[in-house]
Amino acid sequence: IPQLHVAQAQQIAYQNGLGLTPQMGWDNWNAFGCDISEELLLETAQKIVDYGLRDVGYHYIILDDCWSAGRSDNGTLQPNMTKFPNGMAYVADSLHNMSLGFGMYSSAGKLTCAQYAGSLGMEKQDAMTFAGWGVDYLKYDNCYNEGQEGNSMISYNRYKAMSDALNATGRPIFYSICNWGTDYPWNWAPTIANSWRIAGDIYDSFDRPDTRCPCTTWDCKLPGFHCSVMNILNKVAAFTDKGRVGGWNDLDALEVGNSGMTDDEYKLHMTMWALFKSPLILGTDITLLSPSTLSIIANPAILAISQDPAGKAAFRVWEKSPALVENNTYSTDLYTVGSTYFFTGQLTGGDFVIAFLNAGPTTQPMSATMNDIFVDQVTTGSSAPVPYLSVSWDVHDLWANRMPDSVASSILNGTFNNTSGANTDMLNGTAVPISYYYNSTHSSYEEGLAANNTALLGKKVGVLSPGGKVSASVAGHGVAAYRLRSQT
Amino acid sequence: IPQLHVAQAQQIAYQNGLGLTPQMGWDNWNAFGCDISEELLLETAQKIVDYGLRDVGYHYIILDDCWSAGRSDNGTLQPNMTKFPNGMAYVADSLHNMSLGFGMYSSAGKLTCAQYAGSLGMEKQDAMTFAGWGVDYLKYDNCYNEGQEGNSMISYNRYKAMSDALNATGRPIFYSICNWGTDYPWNWAPTIANSWRIAGDIYDSFDRPDTRCPCTTWDCKLPGFHCSVMNILNKVAAFTDKGRVGGWNDLDALEVGNSGMTDDEYKLHMTMWALFKSPLILGTDITLLSPSTLSIIANPAILAISQDPAGKAAFRVWEKSPALVENNTYSTDLYTVGSTYFFTGQLTGGDFVIAFLNAGPTTQPMSATMNDIFVDQVTTGSSAPVPYLSVSWDVHDLWANRMPDSVASSILNGTFNNTSGANTDMLNGTAVPISYYYNSTHSSYEEGLAANNTALLGKKVGVLSPGGKVSASVAGHGVAAYRLRSQT
Amino acid sequence: IPQLHVAQAQQIAYQNGLGLTPQMGWDNWNAFGCDISEELLLETAQKIVDYGLRDVGYHYIILDDCWSAGRSDNGTLQPNMTKFPNGMAYVADSLHNMSLGFGMYSSAGKLTCAQYAGSLGMEKQDAMTFAGWGVDYLKYDNCYNEGQEGNSMISYNRYKAMSDALNATGRPIFYSICNWGTDYPWNWAPTIANSWRIAGDIYDSFDRPDTRCPCTTWDCKLPGFHCSVMNILNKVAAFTDKGRVGGWNDLDALEVGNSGMTDDEYKLHMTMWALFKSPLILGTDITLLSPSTLSIIANPAILAISQDPAGKAAFRVWEKSPALVENNTYSTDLYTVGSTYFFTGQLTGGDFVIAFLNAGPTTQPMSATMNDIFVDQVTTGSSAPVPYLSVSWDVHDLWANRMPDSVASSILNGTFNNTSGANTDMLNGTAVPISYYYNSTHSSYEEGLAANNTALLGKKVGVLSPGGKVSASVAGHGVAAYRLRSQT
Amino acid sequence: IPQLHVAQAQQIAYQNGLGLTPQMGWDNWNAFGCDISEELLLETAQKIVDYGLRDVGYHYIILDDCWSAGRSDNGTLQPNMTKFPNGMAYVADSLHNMSLGFGMYSSAGKLTCAQYAGSLGMEKQDAMTFAGWGVDYLKYDNCYNEGQEGNSMISYNRYKAMSDALNATGRPIFYSICNWGTDYPWNWAPTIANSWRIAGDIYDSFDRPDTRCPCTTWDCKLPGFHCSVMNILNKVAAFTDKGRVGGWNDLDALEVGNSGMTDDEYKLHMTMWALFKSPLILGTDITLLSPSTLSIIANPAILAISQDPAGKAAFRVWEKSPALVENNTYSTDLYTVGSTYFFTGQLTGGDFVIAFLNAGPTTQPMSATMNDIFVDQVTTGSSAPVPYLSVSWDVHDLWANRMPDSVASSILNGTFNNTSGANTDMLNGTAVPISYYYNSTHSSYEEGLAANNTALLGKKVGVLSPGGKVSASVAGHGVAAYRLRSQT
Repeated sequence: IPQLHVAQAQQIAYQNGLGLTPQMGWDNWNAFGCDISEELLLETAQKIVDYGLRDVGYHYIILDDCWSAGRSDNGTLQPNMTKFPNGMAYVADSLHNMSLGFGMYSSAGKLTCAQYAGSLGMEKQDAMTFAGWGVDYLKYDNCYNEGQEGNSMISYNRYKAMSDALNATGRPIFYSICNWGTDYPWNWAPTIANSWRIAGDIYDSFDRPDTRCPCTTWDCKLPGFHCSVMNILNKVAAFTDKGRVGGWNDLDALEVGNSGMTDDEYKLHMTMWALFKSPLILGTDITLLSPSTLSIIANPAILAISQDPAGKAAFRVWEKSPALVENNTYSTDLYTVGSTYFFTGQLTGGDFVIAFLNAGPTTQPMSATMNDIFVDQVTTGSSAPVPYLSVSWDVHDLWANRMPDSVASSILNGTFNNTSGANTDMLNGTAVPISYYYNSTHSSYEEGLAANNTALLGKKVGVLSPGGKVSASVAGHGVAAYRLRSQT
Repeated sequence: IPQLHVAQAQQIAYQNGLGLTPQMGWDNWNAFGCDISEELLLETAQKIVDYGLRDVGYHYIILDDCWSAGRSDNGTLQPNMTKFPNGMAYVADSLHNMSLGFGMYSSAGKLTCAQYAGSLGMEKQDAMTFAGWGVDYLKYDNCYNEGQEGNSMISYNRYKAMSDALNATGRPIFYSICNWGTDYPWNWAPTIANSWRIAGDIYDSFDRPDTRCPCTTWDCKLPGFHCSVMNILNKVAAFTDKGRVGGWNDLDALEVGNSGMTDDEYKLHMTMWALFKSPLILGTDITLLSPSTLSIIANPAILAISQDPAGKAAFRVWEKSPALVENNTYSTDLYTVGSTYFFTGQLTGGDFVIAFLNAGPTTQPMSATMNDIFVDQVTTGSSAPVPYLSVSWDVHDLWANRMPDSVASSILNGTFNNTSGANTDMLNGTAVPISYYYNSTHSSYEEGLAANNTALLGKKVGVLSPGGKVSASVAGHGVAAYRLRSQT
Repeated sequence: IPQLHVAQAQQIAYQNGLGLTPQMGWDNWNAFGCDISEELLLETAQKIVDYGLRDVGYHYIILDDCWSAGRSDNGTLQPNMTKFPNGMAYVADSLHNMSLGFGMYSSAGKLTCAQYAGSLGMEKQDAMTFAGWGVDYLKYDNCYNEGQEGNSMISYNRYKAMSDALNATGRPIFYSICNWGTDYPWNWAPTIANSWRIAGDIYDSFDRPDTRCPCTTWDCKLPGFHCSVMNILNKVAAFTDKGRVGGWNDLDALEVGNSGMTDDEYKLHMTMWALFKSPLILGTDITLLSPSTLSIIANPAILAISQDPAGKAAFRVWEKSPALVENNTYSTDLYTVGSTYFFTGQLTGGDFVIAFLNAGPTTQPMSATMNDIFVDQVTTGSSAPVPYLSVSWDVHDLWANRMPDSVASSILNGTFNNTSGANTDMLNGTAVPISYYYNSTHSSYEEGLAANNTALLGKKVGVLSPGGKVSASVAGHGVAAYRLRSQT
Repeated sequence: IPQLHVAQAQQIAYQNGLGLTPQMGWDNWNAFGCDISEELLLETAQKIVDYGLRDVGYHYIILDDCWSAGRSDNGTLQPNMTKFPNGMAYVADSLHNMSLGFGMYSSAGKLTCAQYAGSLGMEKQDAMTFAGWGVDYLKYDNCYNEGQEGNSMISYNRYKAMSDALNATGRPIFYSICNWGTDYPWNWAPTIANSWRIAGDIYDSFDRPDTRCPCTTWDCKLPGFHCSVMNILNKVAAFTDKGRVGGWNDLDALEVGNSGMTDDEYKLHMTMWALFKSPLILGTDITLLSPSTLSIIANPAILAISQDPAGKAAFRVWEKSPALVENNTYSTDLYTVGSTYFFTGQLTGGDFVIAFLNAGPTTQPMSATMNDIFVDQVTTGSSAPVPYLSVSWDVHDLWANRMPDSVASSILNGTFNNTSGANTDMLNGTAVPISYYYNSTHSSYEEGLAANNTALLGKKVGVLSPGGKVSASVAGHGVAAYRLRSQT
């Protein structure tokens, strides 16, 4: 079975050395909006370290809009000194001391979305300012852009100005474009950025349609905001392949933990963001983290999908309309979004990931044949036999080893004390059972997978033999996800 | 409960000091078209003063197309001296003497829509001419634009030329872009203008579809004209948030009073224009004003929504398809537009405004839960409890205190003589009961709200308690609208 | 009742003095394609004179594509000397001697559609060549345009180059843009041209959908060809008002007479082209003209609508889906286009024209109320009463006086000899009954209408009284059309 | 009956002397992707010669993406010396020695699709490099195009740069644009290229919809990949006429032989590519060629349609929705694509080609009248009689003479030994019955048709008389295709 590899003369499209896997971190916007401060950032950062989230990969602490006090006489951006009494370099230094990265925010417009000074026309000066502060990451928004959009070329030129400016600073700064999919950035952003938003702003809803997020497909002239998880998933489905090593489709920050969805919905949200290689940017109040939230966002088997070194997003194999259930009624929920979906994707080392998504309200049996799972392999290439169909595959459930609430609670309240002894990883000096937790600072996801680390593989629950299929009973608004590894 | 506020370094997007609330005034087009004259303007202005309309906020007297006699040899625009025998400066002076503003009209094209000389390429000279006449407001149209449209950048550049020219005159001139939503001005106009039309021309119909207004959504390459009230409301629904302090979505001038709609329909029209923060530009013959028209356009509780200092437009929470009524038929009217809609919006001081709109032909019971009303509050932020859901709210009906016809008649015929004594405001030296009328020149809407002015709050009709809902029986083609004020 | 008028400072958008009414003439393309010659043009021209078609207004003899032999060494376009042995100036002179105009063809591209030399980049030289030949009219096509389209500005610039070049010659040349509606020329062409095509090429079918004319609405990125009459009518319906004095929406040349449609369908085709103020360019072989074709294309009551000096196109008031007929089946034809439509329009002098169009296959009763007919009058203006509703109107049938086949036959075979004596007009020295024929070279359509010329008014068939309606029984694929004249 | 011809002053739109008929050849991508080498190309080329495929017209051996090792210090593209140890000139020379052409690949972007060095901004240097190597053909892709798309003008300019560069080399190089239909290349590519892709990448499926090929019509902002045969056929249907002598609509390389479709489906695929004048680029592993694949791709009657010198693509006359079959169910397949279609097209010498396509799963009777077949002739021109309807036509089945498997097998295994003696053509020195095989290097397709070569005409199976029709029983997912030749 062929393995994914990168030949010698192939280039990563954007070559600032960053974004080799989808970025991970935390951004204050979803939970706090403009209610920001140095204290919020540093307190959150400390929790992210304490709860082991840094060590599973959440690296960037991203300050969003509303930090500014405008420009000084010479045009230099100034932080709001009430919110950031020690200035931005202090924040950066503090984060660096915790081995975290510092993310900054601006807009490719006259103003930011909250109407603070934007960077359009000031790219060089602002990039130097950010670099001077020790910034490691820039989220670059799209508000008040002075009409500089309308086709790919116009938008590209505007966003390239900051890309060039960041590179000119000499400091490697992760460049995260946030233009909500306008002018199809998946086509033109890969050579100038590490990620690009593909739709309007997410909100904390699984599938409620909101008037202000009016589009239901990727071809959208009004991205808006209050886009649900299912809305975003359906938009990106057509071009998940555009995210590649060095640059990623950004589905927006996570809402996991913010209480607007059920545990099943948050699992689904997390799973699909990982399969689609979206950045994983936490968007909740870390100080209020619940055990169930922690066990979702730190699930090592899911993170191993996200951080897989091959960097190939899964894709949607099929969508089935809501099934007729008893009494000839369709199994749809309040918003009549009841389809079921099947996804598949290639991983490094010849593994595959598959997922069954049930957008209907009630539990449904779902299954996929080998032809579903290996659809690309059977429709590509010559008339030679397809080897994928003739071998057996171990099937690992990615959620079966979810950290128990008791463990998560003890981590959150600082009372964790592992007694299992063997088979552990280190979380802040304490050993954690490796079926629950994976410290990627000790060995990388790539290394862990090569070593058959249980936490990363998930729990083996069966074997897919030639001619067979994988079946699952999937909860309403839920997902079942598996890693397949060839037995040969 | 958090209050809306503007932090120090935030900027208003367009900084000419105008448009802090949606503009109010009168424009001759809807009722008179090209049949204009000095006499019409000044007579109308006098009535606007006499009927107390100036003092509720209708400030700009806007002369529309057809005033021109072309350009002089040196290129200066000349008024038609038959229509305006004393010239334009005289009109301006006369209006200023009545404490009114003077609105002028031109087009960002070779010609105006009625084929008089346009200002494209002549922006500087024309802006100087207008400023020299004492103009306070410019409605700037889009006809004959020489192909200068097709994407945001092209349209922005064309409209920016006049923005710059107006600012260069040194006279503060309200800049009202009228390009019918072409190239999505809600994205690019906020930094160069005080308002922008978002759709084709309105006409005096509640919901009749007209072939010449072919689009039913905001994404429209042919704005056209003869767009109904419901057509326009459905277009703007997706981006009501784009109107903010300093620049507003313009739904076009009002048709209230022109006889093509019922009283319920005109109340709905007025209410929704106020909730969506559209400019409120009267479009009827003031000399023919009926009592019912006066009591609609001067309703202080509605105007207090429009002129709320927070400047945040309401938005559509849901649309429900026509309900099945008896005999399995749908409750739709001649044009089968029978949906019901619910809207909510934030006001200054923590108040909310809500509206139930029934586009069907027959009275419908409608209701909204706290989750409907506070949908943004429950889907935004962290997992912390949502305080809005745990307090009780006074519910004030915005139409319950509508001025009685007898009062309106006496104002119109000059026989008004208030006998209620206490609790009055001044209308041209006569006291008017403040539950009917609010003179915003004595104290602003903001001050009146802070003082719990009855006229501005509407009539308290109930209390919304935690877990409860607001219900209303809404007439066909009608609206019910309420202000909610926290009891805490 | 107000009359239409043009005030003094109003300008015609394109000021070459031509196109004050929609152009009339003949173009060889529909019937002959590339099979052209001097002989064809001059023989046709002579027949157009002989049959009285010149004198009803068919003025331009337009040579279409395939006339060229390329460019000479100095770049001058050369005619194909086999097809045009005496050169183009000879053709022009010959036509001028018959008091006809000469129309020429080129393309705003590298090549014409038939791949002869185009004028893109050669506008000045080619315009001089055309003017030197004595050309009076240019049909300017869109093939092989080197990518110079995609938004209004790009297309405008390309077509403006030829407009400027034609004007620079000093010879008044009617400028007819043929870019098939691409980039919405109705917005940008009026200031640079006398007419502009609004859709793909017509073909000789009433309503058959053809794969190669894939759009069914005006918003079309692939105009194509083989567009049916109904396809084109439905496209232009949304913007008929864009045609005005000086510049017209071009629905493409007529197919009347080419045998692909029934007599009813051709009457409908002719009627709607006249109501919509399309150019009336004959597209049939004049040497094969049938009596029924002659009586359609020369119908004076229809031509008086087309050539009405007010220049205001009718518009579609409503479209009704196919009615249920017996056995619960819909009255639709082979292509299931069975709607019925009602149109109304204003004419000079306060008259109105109305039309009932039945696109279904079987005869339908149709009617319109005063509110349908005067829909613009009742939805525009102030609350003042609408005078149109309170007067009575004479109803004239525009087809009732159609020239009998016997008369048409005798005109075509040169044996016409009128015996009616009085009440005649002159056709080549012979008197023709004026209810059948109108010689517009003796007195203009405007003058004839003012004089209540019977042929121009049509036949009075009834009166529309206040509160009443106009009814007609309309044949399948047929039209009924009436002129309304106020009795006051 | 008129014959197709090209008049003297008409020009071929792109004048590099190539593409007079749709190009034929082989490209490695569909079967091998990046798994390429000198050995693969030369071994394949030898088989193409041995199996007689060169002599039926498959001329270009096209190397696709992944051949590069980047650029040298002076910017010259370098081949990967592991894959191509003797360099590219050696490959070219070897192919030339076999009388084959050498096709090269690059992208009009910063990178190729597989992320090797692209040619954007390097057009002149790269064209010189290719010409220096002896390249005869360039497939020019669209990945990583730095935002240089969004309207026709932008895309045109980008692709014209390479066109100019190729022409400047002095070497005739077939220029094959591969921008997947973005910005409608059928409008702007004909003057700068010999072919242009019209949709996203094909894959080896008859009709399975794939999420990553999201569009179903030609108007597509996200071409994607994994587009099925039916998806591509439905896209191109609206503009098949845009392919003309010198430049062709490219429906993408063939999947025939790759095992994802049935024999009927591959016949359909091959037939429609030929009727639509798509390039015929083999996409299978020639070393694994099966007899049935050989007899499809070498069918002389089909190739004579493709290589017809008139160069006029057939078009779709009608599409009929799936027919109701027993039990009131529709005859649709797994993907509910069950329409039937009829196509017609003009050939050189007055012949016509027609095809019945059945996209449903079960055999259907289909038929076409003379009005269907000659739809363009009956709806074009004047009222003169249509001669096509009044003559009789011989009907030749294009698949009836398909080469028997026994013959194909013996060709493939080198044991072919023809015993039929007379009526043969030469395949590598051995005579082949001419009803199976046509060696176009001996006499061209044009000459063969003129000589009534049996292999090129297909097998006569009937006569179409005036008023009659052609009928066929068409297998599910199958096609029936016929050549009509007038008996007069």
